[in-house]
Amino acid sequence: MRSMNKKYVHGYDLRENIRLQDQASTLVELLHSDTSYPAGSQVLEAGCGVGAQTINLARNSPHAHIISIDISESSVAEAKKKIEGVGFKNVSFQLGDIFNLAFEPESLDHIFVCFVLEHLTQPLDALDSLKNLLKVSGTITVIEGDHGSTYFYPDNDLAHRAIQCQVELQKRAGGNANIGRELYPLLNAVGFNSIQVSPRMVYVDSSKPQLVEGFTKNTFTAMIEGIRETSIEAGLIDKNTFDEGIKGLYRTTETDGVFCYTFFKAIATK
Amino acid sequence: MRSMNKKYVHGYDLRENIRLQDQASTLVELLHSDTSYPAGSQVLEAGCGVGAQTINLARNSPHAHIISIDISESSVAEAKKKIEGVGFKNVSFQLGDIFNLAFEPESLDHIFVCFVLEHLTQPLDALDSLKNLLKVSGTITVIEGDHGSTYFYPDNDLAHRAIQCQVELQKRAGGNANIGRELYPLLNAVGFNSIQVSPRMVYVDSSKPQLVEGFTKNTFTAMIEGIRETSIEAGLIDKNTFDEGIKGLYRTTETDGVFCYTFFKAIATK
Repeated sequence: MRSMNKKYVHGYDLRENIRLQDQASTLVELLHSDTSYPAGSQVLEAGCGVGAQTINLARNSPHAHIISIDISESSVAEAKKKIEGVGFKNVSFQLGDIFNLAFEPESLDHIFVCFVLEHLTQPLDALDSLKNLLKVSGTITVIEGDHGSTYFYPDNDLAHRAIQCQVELQKRAGGNANIGRELYPLLNAVGFNSIQVSPRMVYVDSSKPQLVEGFTKNTFTAMIEGIRETSIEAGLIDKNTFDEGIKGLYRTTETDGVFCYTFFKAIATK
Repeated sequence: MRSMNKKYVHGYDLRENIRLQDQASTLVELLHSDTSYPAGSQVLEAGCGVGAQTINLARNSPHAHIISIDISESSVAEAKKKIEGVGFKNVSFQLGDIFNLAFEPESLDHIFVCFVLEHLTQPLDALDSLKNLLKVSGTITVIEGDHGSTYFYPDNDLAHRAIQCQVELQKRAGGNANIGRELYPLLNAVGFNSIQVSPRMVYVDSSKPQLVEGFTKNTFTAMIEGIRETSIEAGLIDKNTFDEGIKGLYRTTETDGVFCYTFFKAIATK
């Protein structure tokens, strides 16, 4: 399994799936509303996971042919169940390795990659493999987060230390939790053209209760809470420091709190 | 001089004025394009400095009566010269302390405050004073940067340390270089209504050469370079570390570099 680091930091358990669903719903408009593919086009979603983003692709491009692949059999099964459960007919699923996909070179019109590169030890190789599959003038869309873009009020050093555990765990597993800011240089290095990166900042204050719940608490803080045991076992942090850090994150969800995080979305052509 | 800390970190020298001009020009569209006041309205610009933002106010609100005040006599003189030099007739200038202005309570339609709160030891008191001058249903617009929003590729610890010198110097002078993220809680604490904060992120990669020059190099990095001597004299950092940090910032302006900074703009009503 060359493509995916072994310790997939987000895990595959049920709670995590629910979290990924919450995350996807809250962020749909911000991240996906400007992605829509023409009727008849062949679109590869590389690394569909449990289908959290697939559902938006299917909805926004009703007459495109979407092929969603993932390296995890259980994820593909769940994604398939989810999409077919909602009644979409425009998505087919395949088990596959992003570095070794069963497509002819230059056979795809568009490629969509969301929250995948952050987990790969060789993101450049992955982009290069995908570029080979893309028709000339086809587009690639890449969306990634960047944990280093996180700041908040009140500021809290222990909260930053807890977040840094996630960055470090992901690094040890071969990934990069701060990859969002790198999308331009990565796509440029592989030779894509007309690269346009747009940051999508999630700004949360108490006038936006849905984002306080849906993003600050149930997406970001829940994600950091999810690495408590692993971080402590790995000796990255002690229990008290971690728990105080989590309190610091919840503190930002009070009336006078503010939370900021930025995703990056890149579109480029071959 | 209660309102302004003594060591105004940005200084008042010529080079600094030029830098503030560059900064203003590069950021005009991002920060100012959505601020325009109705014909006949009385608008106070509190803390106009050398007039870098006054010129945008004057241009975007040609039939409003703009009153621009600053606590520095030389700044007011320069701002006046600049605005009158361009031929705008809709701005009058006054020397004045933001905490003790010569206006009747509830006499102003709108108030505009840009890059001012970051320098004040009592930003809440300043907002409260300004609120008293505002008519009921009048608006306040506040724009501030946030140095803690700075991140870049390649990441560089020494560059962050050099930036932290600016944060620390501003703090020692009674200000807050990370105040942007606090606009919502500050305005809320003073009792403003309908507070809407929108982050204005400056994202710079090498596909945007004007921003590489105008923002990363000539605004942000020039600002940090400007505190070299003061930081070293204050014992915050040694020469080599600082200079390597500056190199790290310039490194982000190369073909594969990326630089991110976020301003915050808030609009609220009384």
